Amino acid sequence: MIDVAVIEALKTLVEPGKVLTDAASLEAYGKDWTRQYTPAPSAIVFPKTTEQVQAIVLWANEHRVALVPSGGRTGLSGAAVAMNGEVVVSFDYMNQILELNVTDRTVRCQPGVVTKQLQNFAEENGLYYPVDFASSGSSQIGGNIGTNAGGIKVIRYGMTRNWVSGLKVVTGKGDILELNKDLIKNATGYDLRQLFIGAEGTLGFVVEATMRLDRAPKNLTCMVLGTPDFDAIMPVLHAFHGKLDLTAFEFFSDKGLARIMARGDVPEPFATKTPFYALLEFEASNDEIANEALATFEHCVEQGWVIDGVMSQSQQQLQNLWKLREYLSETISHWTPYKNDISVTVSKVPAFLNEIDAIVSEHYPDFEVVWYGHIGDGNLHLNILKPEDLPKEEFFAKCATVNKWVFEIVEKYNGSISAEHGVGLVKRDYLEYSRSPVEIDYMKAVKAVFDPNGIMNPGKIFTV
Amino acid sequence: MIDVAVIEALKTLVEPGKVLTDAASLEAYGKDWTRQYTPAPSAIVFPKTTEQVQAIVLWANEHRVALVPSGGRTGLSGAAVAMNGEVVVSFDYMNQILELNVTDRTVRCQPGVVTKQLQNFAEENGLYYPVDFASSGSSQIGGNIGTNAGGIKVIRYGMTRNWVSGLKVVTGKGDILELNKDLIKNATGYDLRQLFIGAEGTLGFVVEATMRLDRAPKNLTCMVLGTPDFDAIMPVLHAFHGKLDLTAFEFFSDKGLARIMARGDVPEPFATKTPFYALLEFEASNDEIANEALATFEHCVEQGWVIDGVMSQSQQQLQNLWKLREYLSETISHWTPYKNDISVTVSKVPAFLNEIDAIVSEHYPDFEVVWYGHIGDGNLHLNILKPEDLPKEEFFAKCATVNKWVFEIVEKYNGSISAEHGVGLVKRDYLEYSRSPVEIDYMKAVKAVFDPNGIMNPGKIFTV
Repeated sequence: MIDVAVIEALKTLVEPGKVLTDAASLEAYGKDWTRQYTPAPSAIVFPKTTEQVQAIVLWANEHRVALVPSGGRTGLSGAAVAMNGEVVVSFDYMNQILELNVTDRTVRCQPGVVTKQLQNFAEENGLYYPVDFASSGSSQIGGNIGTNAGGIKVIRYGMTRNWVSGLKVVTGKGDILELNKDLIKNATGYDLRQLFIGAEGTLGFVVEATMRLDRAPKNLTCMVLGTPDFDAIMPVLHAFHGKLDLTAFEFFSDKGLARIMARGDVPEPFATKTPFYALLEFEASNDEIANEALATFEHCVEQGWVIDGVMSQSQQQLQNLWKLREYLSETISHWTPYKNDISVTVSKVPAFLNEIDAIVSEHYPDFEVVWYGHIGDGNLHLNILKPEDLPKEEFFAKCATVNKWVFEIVEKYNGSISAEHGVGLVKRDYLEYSRSPVEIDYMKAVKAVFDPNGIMNPGKIFTV
Repeated sequence: MIDVAVIEALKTLVEPGKVLTDAASLEAYGKDWTRQYTPAPSAIVFPKTTEQVQAIVLWANEHRVALVPSGGRTGLSGAAVAMNGEVVVSFDYMNQILELNVTDRTVRCQPGVVTKQLQNFAEENGLYYPVDFASSGSSQIGGNIGTNAGGIKVIRYGMTRNWVSGLKVVTGKGDILELNKDLIKNATGYDLRQLFIGAEGTLGFVVEATMRLDRAPKNLTCMVLGTPDFDAIMPVLHAFHGKLDLTAFEFFSDKGLARIMARGDVPEPFATKTPFYALLEFEASNDEIANEALATFEHCVEQGWVIDGVMSQSQQQLQNLWKLREYLSETISHWTPYKNDISVTVSKVPAFLNEIDAIVSEHYPDFEVVWYGHIGDGNLHLNILKPEDLPKEEFFAKCATVNKWVFEIVEKYNGSISAEHGVGLVKRDYLEYSRSPVEIDYMKAVKAVFDPNGIMNPGKIFTV
């Protein structure tokens, strides 16, 4: 544990009452949504300014204290977990939207701004922040940048990386860097901004971010299509992708749909039962586009790729169709699922999914596997539900075996062991399935440049 | 100069005849389009495989030989110049398109593939490579990546960075890294791919790149609009940007137009003379969009922002209107222009341009300034034409003074001293106008990670 005098020194760096050491705070701020680690930080500190963050980092270097950045704590990889006496740096009080520039379509934010807050702010100003995912109501922009958050609109809008036009950071050495200055074109050497995006706070902390905004989408329209098997989903994607500018292309299985229907609060999309479902979205900004969508639907039915389908005719219907996909994660959480977030290139998805499916059902025929994900980006969420009669410990022990099989298949298909959740603690020991040992050595050397004393979120992504 | 035995050793690493040391080759391969440096390389080597590139880099480390990467040599910053006895590594024989994946919309290329070759290949396959600029007929993909090339479609499609889904590189230490493996979503630590984009070959050499492709654009349509002054261009941009998904928004001045008209091979857009012109482009994929464009044009005329204008009605007219902008660089090259490529955020453009204009005309009232550029990205090309009676040396000496003023104004407006041409040799000594000394120190430390012996394109971007 950290010496009392050292914590007292920390208290002088921030406003009164902005260092907490009570048990409830240590418990609450020491964990994220992974829930599998026992939180044990030494203190939580709440800076309000860039200068306070810088002072905290300099203090941590002086006393060799490990720092863990903390946003909305909705992460699924343990990157915001503090279980080794670290000091948690929470950005809860750096939560202001600082400046909107309508001409540049940018908004300058503090890192503690909640994703939904930014989305709403953009909407109120006739613009659009397109990165969206299940935890947008709690996650913070700083955390989104740290994990390069993706979500449901990546096929059209890309990852968080695409929307960061400038970053102010405090590096692990305590330097303040203003990266890219919000420029669209800037060819003046290495784009260090890119290094901080997805670095999970291991190089430094984001203290300000200028995010790009887009025009508001026009008449978003959704289709849910039932397919006879998984393989049919790919030609459906190909057919629609060629005709429309899709804003989303998701999928889920009949098992997923059954769990949603069992809730009782979401209307059934259509009566026909099919093994898989594609959910796609586009801007029906004029009649020609809507007609093109219907013609493509008919083509897919003629080809036997689609058995039944529905297209939203109102905002209410649009929202109801999206619930089929968006409620999945929360709905199946009651079955204590083993979850995995993996990706391959889009064209490899069918073979990849079938191979994982086969190996799980061969070894554990009684496990229920619920697949869903962002098929348009090659990003699959594998969920294995715990059989009711199987004790939790035994289930997770069996899933640890699954982990290894899954990652071996990921490696075989040149895929990613973490598509959008990050590495953190959960996937740290599996990193070599996606990145070569030489590449990991370069990553460690880059970390040493920005954080020579290894105080920034140590033990996350890799151990040094 | 390099010892003869060392060059003999180099010859054993590649195919026979693939090391050149004759005067004409040294002259040709030692320079780029900057033309202001005297080429003086020791040899030119032409690898054909990744393994040969790796062998060359290991050889260079062993003998401490500086390497300069060489693509189409169309650069405007001197990044591909060899004037200190370096060995030039030309990618002219690594020019194959290796694999197209229609589902993933990606194409795997060697670095020596010419930009136009990639554009044509995409088009033949019903797809589109959107990065385009004046030198696309000669520039190579490896060079595009090294400078993060931009060009005329950035407002819609972004820079080259957006289109690189995977890179294979040989680092300055001679390691082969496969970066990102063409994935759309991959949250497994630092995205080292991003570091190599825009690094001007100072960290390592790209030996293979997987580039993303887009769907082909539909019925591209162009408008040229005459405005009463420069300030009117901004509300015109704002009006059209709000209504249409623009694929380009360029501008040029009456002086630029006059030079184009003097060629005699480009039709006049319309009879009315105006001080400035905006050129914008969009997909008129249906009548509603074309009508929206015309309505916005009428609104701009009513507001007094636009005096006259024209909209293309055919592919021929589209091409003719684009010539007004695309022929500019080549046309004014006959007046030995001092050129500068600078950027600010879009909203600052009018004040920024006026300030530079004022300082140049105050000190050099007899200099003709031709402005043009990518206004939708905040990227301006400043061109000062040499008065006919002024000796070249005297003109460039005066322009050196202009340089400093321009960069001081760039710094004041938080802009970039190089928007899309890179730093190379030309802007190396001005880098601090855009990047802080601390940031430059971090860049140097990052370089040392990938190139500890400083053999990769030394002296470019910064001196170590």
